[in-house]
Amino acid sequence: MTGEAARRVPAVTRVGRVVARAGIVVTGTEVLTGRVSDRNGPWLAEQLRRMGVDVGTVLVVGDRPEDLRAALGFLIAAGEDLLLTTGGLGPTADDLTAEIVAEVQGRPMALDPSLEREIAGIVEGLMDGRRWRADAEATAAGVRKQAMVPAGATVLPPVGTAPGLVVPPAEGRTGPAVVVLPGPPPELQGMWPAALAAEPVQQALAARSELYQETVRLWGTLESQLAATLRQHEFPGLEITTCLRDGELEIVTRYGPDAQPVYDRLMSVLREAHGEQLFSTGPTVDDLVADALAGKGLTVATAESCTSGLLAARLTERAGSSAWVLGGVASYANSAKENLVGVPAEMLAEHGAVSTQVAAALAEGARARFGADVGVGITGIAGPGGGTPDKPVGTVHLCVIGPDGSRPSSVVLPGSRSAVRQRAVTLAMHMLRHLLLGGPPA
Amino acid sequence: MTGEAARRVPAVTRVGRVVARAGIVVTGTEVLTGRVSDRNGPWLAEQLRRMGVDVGTVLVVGDRPEDLRAALGFLIAAGEDLLLTTGGLGPTADDLTAEIVAEVQGRPMALDPSLEREIAGIVEGLMDGRRWRADAEATAAGVRKQAMVPAGATVLPPVGTAPGLVVPPAEGRTGPAVVVLPGPPPELQGMWPAALAAEPVQQALAARSELYQETVRLWGTLESQLAATLRQHEFPGLEITTCLRDGELEIVTRYGPDAQPVYDRLMSVLREAHGEQLFSTGPTVDDLVADALAGKGLTVATAESCTSGLLAARLTERAGSSAWVLGGVASYANSAKENLVGVPAEMLAEHGAVSTQVAAALAEGARARFGADVGVGITGIAGPGGGTPDKPVGTVHLCVIGPDGSRPSSVVLPGSRSAVRQRAVTLAMHMLRHLLLGGPPA
Repeated sequence: MTGEAARRVPAVTRVGRVVARAGIVVTGTEVLTGRVSDRNGPWLAEQLRRMGVDVGTVLVVGDRPEDLRAALGFLIAAGEDLLLTTGGLGPTADDLTAEIVAEVQGRPMALDPSLEREIAGIVEGLMDGRRWRADAEATAAGVRKQAMVPAGATVLPPVGTAPGLVVPPAEGRTGPAVVVLPGPPPELQGMWPAALAAEPVQQALAARSELYQETVRLWGTLESQLAATLRQHEFPGLEITTCLRDGELEIVTRYGPDAQPVYDRLMSVLREAHGEQLFSTGPTVDDLVADALAGKGLTVATAESCTSGLLAARLTERAGSSAWVLGGVASYANSAKENLVGVPAEMLAEHGAVSTQVAAALAEGARARFGADVGVGITGIAGPGGGTPDKPVGTVHLCVIGPDGSRPSSVVLPGSRSAVRQRAVTLAMHMLRHLLLGGPPA
Repeated sequence: MTGEAARRVPAVTRVGRVVARAGIVVTGTEVLTGRVSDRNGPWLAEQLRRMGVDVGTVLVVGDRPEDLRAALGFLIAAGEDLLLTTGGLGPTADDLTAEIVAEVQGRPMALDPSLEREIAGIVEGLMDGRRWRADAEATAAGVRKQAMVPAGATVLPPVGTAPGLVVPPAEGRTGPAVVVLPGPPPELQGMWPAALAAEPVQQALAARSELYQETVRLWGTLESQLAATLRQHEFPGLEITTCLRDGELEIVTRYGPDAQPVYDRLMSVLREAHGEQLFSTGPTVDDLVADALAGKGLTVATAESCTSGLLAARLTERAGSSAWVLGGVASYANSAKENLVGVPAEMLAEHGAVSTQVAAALAEGARARFGADVGVGITGIAGPGGGTPDKPVGTVHLCVIGPDGSRPSSVVLPGSRSAVRQRAVTLAMHMLRHLLLGGPPA
């Protein structure tokens, strides 16, 4: 692990103090059935953990009132100090969260007129931005529903159209306050600071104690190898979790201040046994590559066949990436490889599109056509069709070329079409990391 | 809704018969904290629902044994007929699912020697494919852990390295069987047919009853407009859920055979009130565009600025897309717009990169450079920086050009950088749909 990039994220993040626990209920049939994948439960759990609030369980329920009631009941019975819900705040009849939470907390629902005016203004602006026509009466009815709130609740101003709520139990009752947040992740995240600032939330968080969290990332090994290392030692006071994702092994450890010497010992053990695979004690490979390109003043361009734009999209996920990403070609057809990237037709004919030669030509071509310092080429067979005994599904050839040389890589990646594409893009990120910063080879 | 594409998916899907309920527990601190987003809970819920098995709750817990125990206990106490777990089957010490399920079901753990040999062979192949070196002893220890199974359980053969399990309660005990599945979605999905075939699962599914599911998709309206329509009627026997995603409004309805006339009435109401926005009674916009391109024998190419490859990646998600996708340029830098797509430098200087003129030139350029029938151009300000009073963050200009004409669109999209990029790509898909098939304008 070298370079400024690594140092920008502190090795140890102070993450606050531990409350007994918080519980989260994610609502929405669209989430339960996977039409929308939940990003809110994990996001909230992580925010709370960073503050030292422990989250043990996230429940996902559909839009049925009895399921939401049972989920809230489970968490209240478990003695959680704070409950959070996401979703179910829209204008349609299946959006029931505010009502059910009011019922569970023993508070009647009432219209908030100033909130009603605020939401009406927001909805108008949204329709205008997309140039859609709205029926004024229909809009008004939806707005009125969204402006109904439990009496005595704190209203969190809308970020989208839906307000959030902090709902303590009714006077004379005991139990945790419920923080009611909207489903769309940008709205929920935008509302989070206001939720944290609310008095009942501050009270629940008052009992936090110190907790640290550290992340170590390995590239080039499987979980079984790490497990063997960890089995040879005892690490009392550390909560160690490992996770293999797209070929990358992530080790996250949480511990109280007393266990700092134990954590230091874990780090020695990891460096001893897996030093050759350890590429980060904090930042992601995306952080490392972005910071290295920015820090060295280098630009990058891609030419992708089987991943067809996924790497270009990933490299531009972060704001400001236009300073180092010039662009890319999704050269899916052979004609595109020839005409847009300059891969010679003879090379395609002789070696086939999926070959080390074409991967190198794609990287060279991307570099030349975009005038970039670094070029990346990817070509492979994502499947499920197109495999041969010689080049089975999952065969991917990659090449990264920079001012000081090039790195080729040829692999057979396991998994579905989508898994092969994702894993190839992650491998390319590690090849960029290795080219720019050294460390574990990709 | 026109075209063959729509007819390929039946308007009404017969989805089986209803068992009392199944419950799902997703395990893994990496899922709970969002380092990995869960795709298994929703996928399983949807598979089960399609067979008429009702899933009301998915619980997500970390790698702590007490949380997993409590989650299983909640679902058993709720009287579920079948439980399913995902994750926690790896070789590391934090992978505890098999042990805890064995304990809950009252069955001791025992080594399965033939399973041990099978897993050992798989792990060797994996390391070879990526050309990683493994320590033989470490590998063997990991393999041995993964080959420990509850006595009397049905072993589901590994798809990755981990076997699945079907664990009925011990002799003399009552309660639901637990289906234990691995965490990586391709492994879990690959193992699903074997899990379904297991005797205890078949028994739990025996009590299913008939249930239908239908999906209607609208483009060009907000939930409040639909809510107003639905509020004017009663639809007894229908479970209607709506979901707004990237500007698209999805209406999913579930009902028993008796409610068919009620559903037919809902459809009449929707066609009456929202016929101009109704673009599908089943297939997604991705299905419609892919089938239209394939059916008409047309090819497509893209030139993307702010979305930088996301549309090209989305168009190539499905197998076989090489028949109609030629490729794309992620023309992030202005130099790339000029050199790779042929946008005139004067146009960029006069109108700026984010303009209707440049969107049209990108679409034209993509079509010309790739020799495609249809070209798509996208340019915009994804944010969070780069906005001006004149062109605020979220401003996106798009253009789709085909053999019979072109469609431009200019919008201001709400949300974060990532939301603006996703919404712009979905809008582009609808512009393609409209160009190819007519229906609601994008």
